[in-house]
Amino acid sequence: MTRIDEIGEDALIAMFAPLLPDTDSEILGPGDDAAVLSVDGDLVVSSDMLVEGQHFRNEWSSAADVGWRAAMQNLADIDAMGAVPTALQVSLAAPGHTDVEWVMGFARGLAAACAPHGVGVVGGDLSASDRIVVAVTALGETHGTDPVTRADAGDGDVLAVSAPLGAARAGYELLQDPDLDDVSEHPAVEAFLRPSPRIGAGLEAALHGATAMMDVSDGLIRDVGRIARASEAGIAIDSSLVPIAEECELGAAGRDAGTALEWALTGGEDHVMLAAFPRGRALPDGWTVIGEVTDAFRGVRVDGAVHESQGWDHFGQ
Amino acid sequence: MTRIDEIGEDALIAMFAPLLPDTDSEILGPGDDAAVLSVDGDLVVSSDMLVEGQHFRNEWSSAADVGWRAAMQNLADIDAMGAVPTALQVSLAAPGHTDVEWVMGFARGLAAACAPHGVGVVGGDLSASDRIVVAVTALGETHGTDPVTRADAGDGDVLAVSAPLGAARAGYELLQDPDLDDVSEHPAVEAFLRPSPRIGAGLEAALHGATAMMDVSDGLIRDVGRIARASEAGIAIDSSLVPIAEECELGAAGRDAGTALEWALTGGEDHVMLAAFPRGRALPDGWTVIGEVTDAFRGVRVDGAVHESQGWDHFGQ
Repeated sequence: MTRIDEIGEDALIAMFAPLLPDTDSEILGPGDDAAVLSVDGDLVVSSDMLVEGQHFRNEWSSAADVGWRAAMQNLADIDAMGAVPTALQVSLAAPGHTDVEWVMGFARGLAAACAPHGVGVVGGDLSASDRIVVAVTALGETHGTDPVTRADAGDGDVLAVSAPLGAARAGYELLQDPDLDDVSEHPAVEAFLRPSPRIGAGLEAALHGATAMMDVSDGLIRDVGRIARASEAGIAIDSSLVPIAEECELGAAGRDAGTALEWALTGGEDHVMLAAFPRGRALPDGWTVIGEVTDAFRGVRVDGAVHESQGWDHFGQ
Repeated sequence: MTRIDEIGEDALIAMFAPLLPDTDSEILGPGDDAAVLSVDGDLVVSSDMLVEGQHFRNEWSSAADVGWRAAMQNLADIDAMGAVPTALQVSLAAPGHTDVEWVMGFARGLAAACAPHGVGVVGGDLSASDRIVVAVTALGETHGTDPVTRADAGDGDVLAVSAPLGAARAGYELLQDPDLDDVSEHPAVEAFLRPSPRIGAGLEAALHGATAMMDVSDGLIRDVGRIARASEAGIAIDSSLVPIAEECELGAAGRDAGTALEWALTGGEDHVMLAAFPRGRALPDGWTVIGEVTDAFRGVRVDGAVHESQGWDHFGQ
């Protein structure tokens, strides 16, 4: 292997940059003080970090998996506004002993996630640190609809999700189960390491009149709570309606009854779209109603009660 | 003190967000999956990371200093394109034991740097990590001029800087000198901890016809080399013309003759603008010619020779 501190920053960028996808919006790409893009409509911007040991482990995730996930969760945030992603800025901090090949694999993972959507990686930063930190800012533009925030769900709206839930959580549980041998080819593990939300589901929801939307990143109940709080409303979830991913059912096989449902309710990182729609509106293909918005209470109730586990807090216990 | 893991992510954001400046371009600010901005002209985007222990030390820099520097170096990157900064995305990874007051101080530092320029902090991310990492993406827009890249310096152009150099390097040298007592109020140290490039100098240079431009972040010689390489040209620096910051001279007092000049040539982080202009054009106020662009050789020569020290590489030795 060759360590990145053996070849230096400028040489590393020269190797890395050609692997990155570009975008039709790009006027000036990587290599200058800033990138330059053309923007139609309004600009939509979102940022996320991935920290080694917190969001990924190198013994589980390949470099390409990390690049894929860093891209995909940011594309999902743009989609969750009902906007179209166009470009990423990707900053990478890594120890000097990191293998150059890791950085190239990371770039290939970014490209694999972005290129099918015409999204380019237009710039970023490289820095030394004692562990790997990836910081992505995704840029997109509105496409004939107003941005769909979390704040406008109203009394009587139905709440729906764009796809079944729990696959990523199941993969995480399998990976950290000390009693299991190699699970790397289990479909739930693949779903955890390479989440594949359908980018464009959010735009379709916007075109179907979604009143509030976000992607499920920290667990369904926690994220539903964010829509409820932003919209100053209550949301009632009927757990019998919550679609459970096949990978989640497979991962929960042999465990206590109810495990798969619990993972679907509280697991994060599927990046499935979650939206409220006016009652009676046709939903886009593939969406499932799981509950309703109400003025009768505040917060989230599952089958009429406050659920014990709320999902993932990045600092909390 | 209160630790950030005692109050949790959502509560921390609720305390942090009101301290952040906003911008006239903002359609939707922090708190949703993405921010929404209006953009006139083309979009200019740049990213930088600050890593604890690499780019700052908590025993030297207050939280507000870190916020200030994170903002300012990114504003300088937008200015270095001849564009106008409008907004920042700011992501922060920090240990759970970090004092909530550190995060508030960081927000106040961001605000102090941004607000005078009408720049808002419109979004970002919070994450746990074992040391502090700040990742900023700055957004700006062109303002009636084409973006000024590093690539179009031409034979015969003059090379100029917008302000004297070496202040930040002098402050760094003073801080790490074990023979010195408290230097926290030395003007060079203040310049290192709170770099204050004049934002707008880059736009003025663009309006005066600059052919190539960047800000000096990794040292004059190294960064001049980047313009030379991108422009496929040679650049000759006359060291007797290089303006040395007063803080640099003060910091070098009592050291070997030539120390202040060496710091001005190789020190980084002043974020002064560096640009090439067609010979004979009037320069903006405050700029100083330090050399010229030539087709007679490639790379950088100082007083006719290759300089021994090239400046700062983030991974190299």
